[in-house]
Amino acid sequence: MADSSSVPAGLTPAELRLRFRAGGLVAPTSGLAPGFVQANLVILPQALAFDFLLFCQRNPKPCPLLEVVDAGSIEPRLMAPGADLRTDTPKYRVYRDGTLAAEPIDLKELWADDLISFLIGCSFTFESALIEAGIPVRHIEQCSNVPMYITSIPTAPAGVFHGPMVVSMRPVPAAQVVRAVQVTSRFPAVHGAPVHIGDPAAIGIRDIARPELGDPVEIRPGEVPIFWACGVTPQAAAMASRPPLMITHAPGHMFVTDRRDAEYSVL
Amino acid sequence: MADSSSVPAGLTPAELRLRFRAGGLVAPTSGLAPGFVQANLVILPQALAFDFLLFCQRNPKPCPLLEVVDAGSIEPRLMAPGADLRTDTPKYRVYRDGTLAAEPIDLKELWADDLISFLIGCSFTFESALIEAGIPVRHIEQCSNVPMYITSIPTAPAGVFHGPMVVSMRPVPAAQVVRAVQVTSRFPAVHGAPVHIGDPAAIGIRDIARPELGDPVEIRPGEVPIFWACGVTPQAAAMASRPPLMITHAPGHMFVTDRRDAEYSVL
Repeated sequence: MADSSSVPAGLTPAELRLRFRAGGLVAPTSGLAPGFVQANLVILPQALAFDFLLFCQRNPKPCPLLEVVDAGSIEPRLMAPGADLRTDTPKYRVYRDGTLAAEPIDLKELWADDLISFLIGCSFTFESALIEAGIPVRHIEQCSNVPMYITSIPTAPAGVFHGPMVVSMRPVPAAQVVRAVQVTSRFPAVHGAPVHIGDPAAIGIRDIARPELGDPVEIRPGEVPIFWACGVTPQAAAMASRPPLMITHAPGHMFVTDRRDAEYSVL
Repeated sequence: MADSSSVPAGLTPAELRLRFRAGGLVAPTSGLAPGFVQANLVILPQALAFDFLLFCQRNPKPCPLLEVVDAGSIEPRLMAPGADLRTDTPKYRVYRDGTLAAEPIDLKELWADDLISFLIGCSFTFESALIEAGIPVRHIEQCSNVPMYITSIPTAPAGVFHGPMVVSMRPVPAAQVVRAVQVTSRFPAVHGAPVHIGDPAAIGIRDIARPELGDPVEIRPGEVPIFWACGVTPQAAAMASRPPLMITHAPGHMFVTDRRDAEYSVL
């Protein structure tokens, strides 16, 4: 499978989506279309939509909603006018009864008129802001995926949805921890401020060297692990809550939007 | 009818709610329980709840959701544990088919197990922050209600709900306009940054001296009118969209919560 380095540099979000739509390109989206918001994707039948919308409202840190697309519509008119949600994400995941059932590269066969799509903020947005503030982001330096952990922090349940909060971790030099809190606090629409700083055991993480998802990263002497709520939390909720059908993006293979990161800073 | 000055000073939010519950006190809540969040209230039958939740998601400035209470539950467990939403607001409004049908002081007769309650942020929270920042708030100086205007700014429709955005206006000395933007930007959960600064006509306001709701306030030489999205917008949506039943608080008679204003600042 391709990695992001095989994608020509300088493509606009719309050009990238057309490449994914054409089907010849399946690649993680980290680093692509820098400066533009990338989104987690959750697609559910209408019968589950109220419960999931309420789950997001009650858990704004892991599930900050950027847009909810009307039932049956394939176009996120706010975030990416003209896009097709069935084809423009590089890879999807299909969960049936809480179990990963397939990883298709489009949803042409699966699409139905009662499906409602939710676009959820992604930490790529605040990572750009961290780097601009001179704060190192280790997994980007390592060219790996961010380490993610299933915590002992419960989400606020809503209807059928419940489950543990998933967090991502970035080690930050002690002298820059305050600045990292400030920078990410300005982006509540993309997870915002951290949920925990320091001791992993305090939020139920047994072994910081063995993330449940993504790749481990080095924590150097003098660095403090900082934990942010993660947009994979809905997938953990799918596994815990076992809805008949839930479609998401494949981890790291995000939906690339036309909106700029800077539009999502509150100050 | 009583005004706020008839309420003993120094009551906690819980004590205030008990006074309202007992029924002997009907008063606007401006200035009561300073430092604690007050909320706009919208109560709808479950059949309308998804559309309204989506309306709030799509219109976060006028409709910033603080809590959604499960169907039939009378207790906002996040904002005011132990409270009773049927009795603890000083006065309610009942809209039927988009028309104001009654202004009861409790909902004991009207309550039904399919009702879902939405608590929405209120600008009282950021007004305290403005005053602390040395920015005058004219309608508080005048002891009147904030002036509100129906604008030409459309809300993003969701299901049956649509209608114009309602804004509140506060005149601010030109030298403090930037600071007013900064201070209120820190509170996205209670309407956040202004939606417009300056010329009222640019957002469809014909006569700044004649607000559609609330009281007019003086704009002194050198002051600029600043407009913020207003929590009365759902009531305008009720009138435009004509749902069979929608219950709200009566303007100025808010639900007083146990959460502190400072908890809702993002930075």
